Amino acid sequence: MNREGIEKVLSALASGEITVVDALERLKGMPYEDLEFAKLDHHRELRRGIPEAIYSPGKTDAQILEIARRTLARKGEAVFTRMSEATCQKLREELGDEVRWHPEARIATVGSEERARHGKVLIVTAGTSDIPVAEEAAVTCDLLGCETDRLYDVGVAGVHRLTSNLRHFESADVIIVVAGMEGALPSVVAGLTDKPVVAVPTSVGYGASFGGMAALLGMLSSCSSGIGVVNIDNGFGAGALAALIVKNKHAGR
Amino acid sequence: MNREGIEKVLSALASGEITVVDALERLKGMPYEDLEFAKLDHHRELRRGIPEAIYSPGKTDAQILEIARRTLARKGEAVFTRMSEATCQKLREELGDEVRWHPEARIATVGSEERARHGKVLIVTAGTSDIPVAEEAAVTCDLLGCETDRLYDVGVAGVHRLTSNLRHFESADVIIVVAGMEGALPSVVAGLTDKPVVAVPTSVGYGASFGGMAALLGMLSSCSSGIGVVNIDNGFGAGALAALIVKNKHAGR
Amino acid sequence: MNREGIEKVLSALASGEITVVDALERLKGMPYEDLEFAKLDHHRELRRGIPEAIYSPGKTDAQILEIARRTLARKGEAVFTRMSEATCQKLREELGDEVRWHPEARIATVGSEERARHGKVLIVTAGTSDIPVAEEAAVTCDLLGCETDRLYDVGVAGVHRLTSNLRHFESADVIIVVAGMEGALPSVVAGLTDKPVVAVPTSVGYGASFGGMAALLGMLSSCSSGIGVVNIDNGFGAGALAALIVKNKHAGR
Amino acid sequence: MNREGIEKVLSALASGEITVVDALERLKGMPYEDLEFAKLDHHRELRRGIPEAIYSPGKTDAQILEIARRTLARKGEAVFTRMSEATCQKLREELGDEVRWHPEARIATVGSEERARHGKVLIVTAGTSDIPVAEEAAVTCDLLGCETDRLYDVGVAGVHRLTSNLRHFESADVIIVVAGMEGALPSVVAGLTDKPVVAVPTSVGYGASFGGMAALLGMLSSCSSGIGVVNIDNGFGAGALAALIVKNKHAGR
Amino acid sequence: MNREGIEKVLSALASGEITVVDALERLKGMPYEDLEFAKLDHHRELRRGIPEAIYSPGKTDAQILEIARRTLARKGEAVFTRMSEATCQKLREELGDEVRWHPEARIATVGSEERARHGKVLIVTAGTSDIPVAEEAAVTCDLLGCETDRLYDVGVAGVHRLTSNLRHFESADVIIVVAGMEGALPSVVAGLTDKPVVAVPTSVGYGASFGGMAALLGMLSSCSSGIGVVNIDNGFGAGALAALIVKNKHAGR
Amino acid sequence: MNREGIEKVLSALASGEITVVDALERLKGMPYEDLEFAKLDHHRELRRGIPEAIYSPGKTDAQILEIARRTLARKGEAVFTRMSEATCQKLREELGDEVRWHPEARIATVGSEERARHGKVLIVTAGTSDIPVAEEAAVTCDLLGCETDRLYDVGVAGVHRLTSNLRHFESADVIIVVAGMEGALPSVVAGLTDKPVVAVPTSVGYGASFGGMAALLGMLSSCSSGIGVVNIDNGFGAGALAALIVKNKHAGR
Amino acid sequence: MNREGIEKVLSALASGEITVVDALERLKGMPYEDLEFAKLDHHRELRRGIPEAIYSPGKTDAQILEIARRTLARKGEAVFTRMSEATCQKLREELGDEVRWHPEARIATVGSEERARHGKVLIVTAGTSDIPVAEEAAVTCDLLGCETDRLYDVGVAGVHRLTSNLRHFESADVIIVVAGMEGALPSVVAGLTDKPVVAVPTSVGYGASFGGMAALLGMLSSCSSGIGVVNIDNGFGAGALAALIVKNKHAGR
Amino acid sequence: MNREGIEKVLSALASGEITVVDALERLKGMPYEDLEFAKLDHHRELRRGIPEAIYSPGKTDAQILEIARRTLARKGEAVFTRMSEATCQKLREELGDEVRWHPEARIATVGSEERARHGKVLIVTAGTSDIPVAEEAAVTCDLLGCETDRLYDVGVAGVHRLTSNLRHFESADVIIVVAGMEGALPSVVAGLTDKPVVAVPTSVGYGASFGGMAALLGMLSSCSSGIGVVNIDNGFGAGALAALIVKNKHAGR
Repeated sequence: MNREGIEKVLSALASGEITVVDALERLKGMPYEDLEFAKLDHHRELRRGIPEAIYSPGKTDAQILEIARRTLARKGEAVFTRMSEATCQKLREELGDEVRWHPEARIATVGSEERARHGKVLIVTAGTSDIPVAEEAAVTCDLLGCETDRLYDVGVAGVHRLTSNLRHFESADVIIVVAGMEGALPSVVAGLTDKPVVAVPTSVGYGASFGGMAALLGMLSSCSSGIGVVNIDNGFGAGALAALIVKNKHAGR
Repeated sequence: MNREGIEKVLSALASGEITVVDALERLKGMPYEDLEFAKLDHHRELRRGIPEAIYSPGKTDAQILEIARRTLARKGEAVFTRMSEATCQKLREELGDEVRWHPEARIATVGSEERARHGKVLIVTAGTSDIPVAEEAAVTCDLLGCETDRLYDVGVAGVHRLTSNLRHFESADVIIVVAGMEGALPSVVAGLTDKPVVAVPTSVGYGASFGGMAALLGMLSSCSSGIGVVNIDNGFGAGALAALIVKNKHAGR
Repeated sequence: MNREGIEKVLSALASGEITVVDALERLKGMPYEDLEFAKLDHHRELRRGIPEAIYSPGKTDAQILEIARRTLARKGEAVFTRMSEATCQKLREELGDEVRWHPEARIATVGSEERARHGKVLIVTAGTSDIPVAEEAAVTCDLLGCETDRLYDVGVAGVHRLTSNLRHFESADVIIVVAGMEGALPSVVAGLTDKPVVAVPTSVGYGASFGGMAALLGMLSSCSSGIGVVNIDNGFGAGALAALIVKNKHAGR
Repeated sequence: MNREGIEKVLSALASGEITVVDALERLKGMPYEDLEFAKLDHHRELRRGIPEAIYSPGKTDAQILEIARRTLARKGEAVFTRMSEATCQKLREELGDEVRWHPEARIATVGSEERARHGKVLIVTAGTSDIPVAEEAAVTCDLLGCETDRLYDVGVAGVHRLTSNLRHFESADVIIVVAGMEGALPSVVAGLTDKPVVAVPTSVGYGASFGGMAALLGMLSSCSSGIGVVNIDNGFGAGALAALIVKNKHAGR
Repeated sequence: MNREGIEKVLSALASGEITVVDALERLKGMPYEDLEFAKLDHHRELRRGIPEAIYSPGKTDAQILEIARRTLARKGEAVFTRMSEATCQKLREELGDEVRWHPEARIATVGSEERARHGKVLIVTAGTSDIPVAEEAAVTCDLLGCETDRLYDVGVAGVHRLTSNLRHFESADVIIVVAGMEGALPSVVAGLTDKPVVAVPTSVGYGASFGGMAALLGMLSSCSSGIGVVNIDNGFGAGALAALIVKNKHAGR
Repeated sequence: MNREGIEKVLSALASGEITVVDALERLKGMPYEDLEFAKLDHHRELRRGIPEAIYSPGKTDAQILEIARRTLARKGEAVFTRMSEATCQKLREELGDEVRWHPEARIATVGSEERARHGKVLIVTAGTSDIPVAEEAAVTCDLLGCETDRLYDVGVAGVHRLTSNLRHFESADVIIVVAGMEGALPSVVAGLTDKPVVAVPTSVGYGASFGGMAALLGMLSSCSSGIGVVNIDNGFGAGALAALIVKNKHAGR
Repeated sequence: MNREGIEKVLSALASGEITVVDALERLKGMPYEDLEFAKLDHHRELRRGIPEAIYSPGKTDAQILEIARRTLARKGEAVFTRMSEATCQKLREELGDEVRWHPEARIATVGSEERARHGKVLIVTAGTSDIPVAEEAAVTCDLLGCETDRLYDVGVAGVHRLTSNLRHFESADVIIVVAGMEGALPSVVAGLTDKPVVAVPTSVGYGASFGGMAALLGMLSSCSSGIGVVNIDNGFGAGALAALIVKNKHAGR
Repeated sequence: MNREGIEKVLSALASGEITVVDALERLKGMPYEDLEFAKLDHHRELRRGIPEAIYSPGKTDAQILEIARRTLARKGEAVFTRMSEATCQKLREELGDEVRWHPEARIATVGSEERARHGKVLIVTAGTSDIPVAEEAAVTCDLLGCETDRLYDVGVAGVHRLTSNLRHFESADVIIVVAGMEGALPSVVAGLTDKPVVAVPTSVGYGASFGGMAALLGMLSSCSSGIGVVNIDNGFGAGALAALIVKNKHAGR
């Protein structure tokens, strides 16, 4: 039952067609339709916050196209992560300029609208191989209305590269640190700043790094405080968390 | 907002005090109170089904006593699993015969009432060391209104022990199979019957059985169909699942 | 020794050719031939229950064709899971309409006959990527004589999607919940209903979801009772278990 | 070389005792003394932010007493986590009221001073067994100058308990969600709000929950966005991260 | 149905009371009673082979005493592994000299009778800490009628200790190699001989040896052929396998 | 230094050219040359036992050809396991009929000569997908001079298939059991016979069978005695172990 | 701020433009620029030690070309590991003879200059499949100025092959041991020598060797002392560590 | 056969009692006695290098006393690691001042003699809880004749503590870095120096640090070169490796 359904019950009650007891009985049976209201409200809220993110691998081109079309039809916004260039190409053939493509981040969006900027997120990587994940985070932050700053390839094997760039830290509201191998960079960064740190382990590395497991465990076991960890290679998740932190910071004013 | 709250809104609408729009607006804001209705209904349903189970380890005697008292106060029923005899002793000192104690299953109950019996659950173990977990399952089934049958120590190292007891299978509605070590028994049982099998890996075994992990993986990887697996040593969970299957079977008549 | 063999011994005894002791001695030596009887009986039983399921990956097209042919020759029924479209195509070239193909479920069957319907299984998924596994379960239920209902893409990130669809739960005898990533949906579903829940972890997700391991562990560790877990991506196993539960429910009438 | 050392070099230069080249040479040789400045500055900053946290297990009472004494001597502040009551008792015998004890959180502090309050952190738990970790988080937030709100025992097995308490979410700046077993609660919470969520897996559970591993993997693999995960049972880390987020929010005004 | 049952059917047939068809029908229904015959036969065979082994940990003294008593009552033989000295003491208080105790191997036996000796098993250990497991294997071999030879503390860190003792290898029929840590000794031994090698990983070691896991994986991954691996610390299993090999060797003559 | 080298030293001593002390000194310096003798002796021994096995994956065709050529040049024998048909084709183009190809077992041999037969090895599989590994074992046994018997597709889901074929067990000296999924078959087989059992886990299965890990752990944790386990999919290793057992049995006569 | 920046501050101080306090204040703000000095110094040092190593997989040809170009532009030296022949081909098309290619080691270098030789590293492998990793180590040692000696295919299955070659050990300063499967060779080597041993597990092997994990755990759990382990397949890391040991040995003279 | 045995053969040959062929034959049979020579030589060598290390846990006091006595009897030297104070007390009651006790390192030695000092090992720890393992390393270095320097509690959460102490690095020949939690310190240290780094993961930490596993994987996956890793908590192993490096450095002069 939707809003109209409830309105009908209430109208019937107001017009004396049904009694309070009847109305109560009918409404008791539809709490979830009530929840659909909240859902719609919530969705409106979400549209101002984090848009629906679709993880592209494992979905057919047809499925992705359908999701994109429906999203556009309802004036929504969708972010497709880990999209292949080939799939994006097909999407564009069908939907044209409605599709925006961020190649390094492997993100395509439809229906995204410019947001007002507030707050800045600094994205730091340990190595150059971590950059695709970092770009996924950076583009996500950008889509969600944050300014971004990048500080790449400042891994702990040359800690001077990091300490000589601390000025980047000052102007950021949140710092995303992307690192593979031993995943030590978030510990060092968090020890040098009092900004919240979002740590993203990457699957960069080989042997005993176990596809990002060593970095993940390292970040979770960090001797520094103030670090929140997201899943391996999950640049979108890191960007979304950072954007929520920034958004709440500025929303609260 | 409870039922009274909603009734008040509806009465105000019926009496013309507020408009349909007003009523709609107020009701939109209280979906969760509506849900409380469902919750209460659901709870009533649940009281006839699976009572609240409290995992005792890690709770203080005081906490357990408090839970037991509140349960009795609201005429509820609680099942305390993995309770130590010492804790049960203290509970009884306070609450007397309200507390029922099943020592082999390490289960204590308060507020449990006799249920009508319908359906039978057969509980099978591979070895004698699996019996405490099996008893936890059996007592749970019994509490939830099932008849129980036991067939213990019929592991696959002597498969004749099992095949010579197939008559037990015929009269059961569900078969719970409890096994540690390699956990092979559910595969063999499920291959011999068309009853649903609930498999419980136990932490019995040593070395590469990894506290039940070998049995768990074995049961999940079974070459037989018709097996649902619960957590390691989770006799209560197996009993509850079996009882739900039995109950739905007889409820549907 | 088959039925004929035993008959021969008994005839010799009846005709006085051999003594009781002789017959006893001969029969003692052939318990496994006796078992062959049971096997045949059991097989007949099974044909009314769960047909032989063949996991196609790792088998050559020739092997699959041979299995299909033999199954048809003995008027049997076989369910081939995880079959590729290419293999199914070849099968059909040889066996024509004897082969039925369920593309989304990746299931092909030969010799399957229409079964009478009894009972209903609801199949729920957390996301759209879980649908192939869900369809494997649904087609299995359908093959085994259950009605099916589907409720897809109601994951816990938007719990309202689920709570607004509780009416689906009421009419089901068993609920299969298919979920990847953190595998939280079965816990929520089992908390909202008293129907038995069969939980299927899927390999959907990446990073620390470890090919379904996170979902599997989550489902096994569920705080809700009444959940039986099957192997990762094992839609067939879930369907078979659900069908057994339903069948026993109705067989018992 | 400390501040005085540098001052001496500069004075010598200002007084003409040494040349610019000499001064340059000497200063070049002491980057780490320079860093000590930053360290001091940073420490001052930190005192307004996160005080030094000492993980008590594995340290002798004598070591802990020594750390506490030195902290007091330099007018510092220290937070001892996971302290046993016995150790706290000894600490108090020596240092008296300088030691503050939070028994449920197992935290002792020395030298902590009242901070101005800004921002609110909501701490949510799935079960009652998660409360000690939640209290560690809550006390940490409190020590670091945040208001706290608690919403305990609202696990996903009864999702209505959660949805009927959404009003708690609105007034919070950050939500800490503490859960063991399958760790599904953060996914559900993050799906219901746009506040940043800090997820803390706990070692509550048994069998295949592997001392918190199931909850940890589940939280990392969450289908919801906007979640940062900390280590198993790491209430202090969660509190510190939440406080940093809140602090930066209000510092930025 | 036991032997008497079958005899009755056959007698009825012989006396013309029932027809061949009747008899066939009745006998078809009792394959498992037939199997009980085989079971008994098999048990007799087994008593000449490997006696029932009872893993003592996790069993109460009362249970162990009961098993021992029943075993003696039916003139059987039982081997209790991993028994504590205290439990053995109690057993002896009740059963006296019927109980034989092998302290280093932590094995107690009841009803064991002297067997004829044939074949020799050499038990080799890498270190002195592996000796209890080795003794469990050696005593098992001895109980099962093998001669034993011991070569202890010849680990690969001093490979000369091994190569200077190759004469021990020549006279053995089977070699059991017990090793913890990296578990390399079986590879080296198997490379020096053409006797079958039974490898037993032990939980000796620390850190990344993971309670015997490193040794287990090492033995399974051995670059040498001719090695069969048993579970971690499973001296009894190694002894039983070695004895079976030896027994079959000599049985075949 | 080879045999000639030592002969030279001894001749010099015998002829008085050098003293005993000199000779001792020189010989002391060459224990490893002495070992080379043993190596050669050992190799001769091995040629009667297990020939050199070359694991083909990861080696170039050129390397494999070179190994084959050298083996033939020194009248040796080599067994190439896991060889692709393409590589075998190339080998044959160069070496012609010297190369023998066992396609199902994926084994190629060069220089293999007919051995006298003694002893029989029974190879059992749980399913049809286990057959390639079983054939690798069977061909290995055949190459090493054992008779072989095969009993395929008798997994524990239909335990009657196994118990009705026990006659195969009687005539075997060793039983190799090949099984994937839960790996339960060796436990059942070992419980039905007193022959040594060599268990081979296979990577057949999916999800929580983890590429053979579930089967491996299950076999190691078996509740039956008398089982030696080899590595996942290691048919060659199983065959070699079985052949060693058989060979020693008959060598000892 | 660079050297010039600091000079400017000091000049201003020397000329009386600013006070000591001003200068102190300004200098306090630039510790990281000071660190840039150290960085440069450190880099110079590094150029004499270990050149920058670039792990090629996961980098595009364009990225690799760019790194190579920049390296040459600044007269630097870069070592590209795990490079494919195709990529090297492209590099050479652009940069010609500046690129040196070591095919077996899969290493390409640009800007490498001949170093003076001091010290010798012996590289030992267990099997022939370990040779690519060993060559990566050997070429690295060579590039860093060490002499190298090779002793390949001396695994523990034929320990005589090793003991007959001990003379190689004497002349080496460091021994690198490369082994897959059970990884036992470093234990045996370290037991035969007092040279430091660098152990490299390789991903050679299958089944329970888990891509090098068995070898890694074995090496870490070694019963021999004096072994330092590097990551799986990390030939470069082993070579770099060995070269550092050798370099420090000779630098210290 | 020992040296005397060989001498006898040679004397017989020299005296013409036996022929060259006879002598050759006899000597061929005793390679392992020859190896005993090497063993003795090697042992002598080892006594100048690394003494026998006995891991005390799991050994009885009687066994430890016996080892100590035999060691003293043969004028040897033994290092007992992880010894409890109680055991050491008993050892001293029996052997008096022969036993030297290093309480913080939990090491007891017998028969150790002062060695000449050469070379210096710097031992660095991330935290104070890592100190016992560090002391085990330091005492081992000291026993083996190295000077030691200590730099404790300089973890990466406050990287300035490390960079301000770089002077310690210059005078060291080898640096041992001991760290738990995420194990990031060796990466940072190795990036700041060109000395060989021996990394020791410790079991310090909780939750996802998995008893040192996170630190171990982090160290193996380090982005810095020149690091050799030893087992978790293996301070002795680190000290022994460092001492071998130092010893070889100075031995080579």
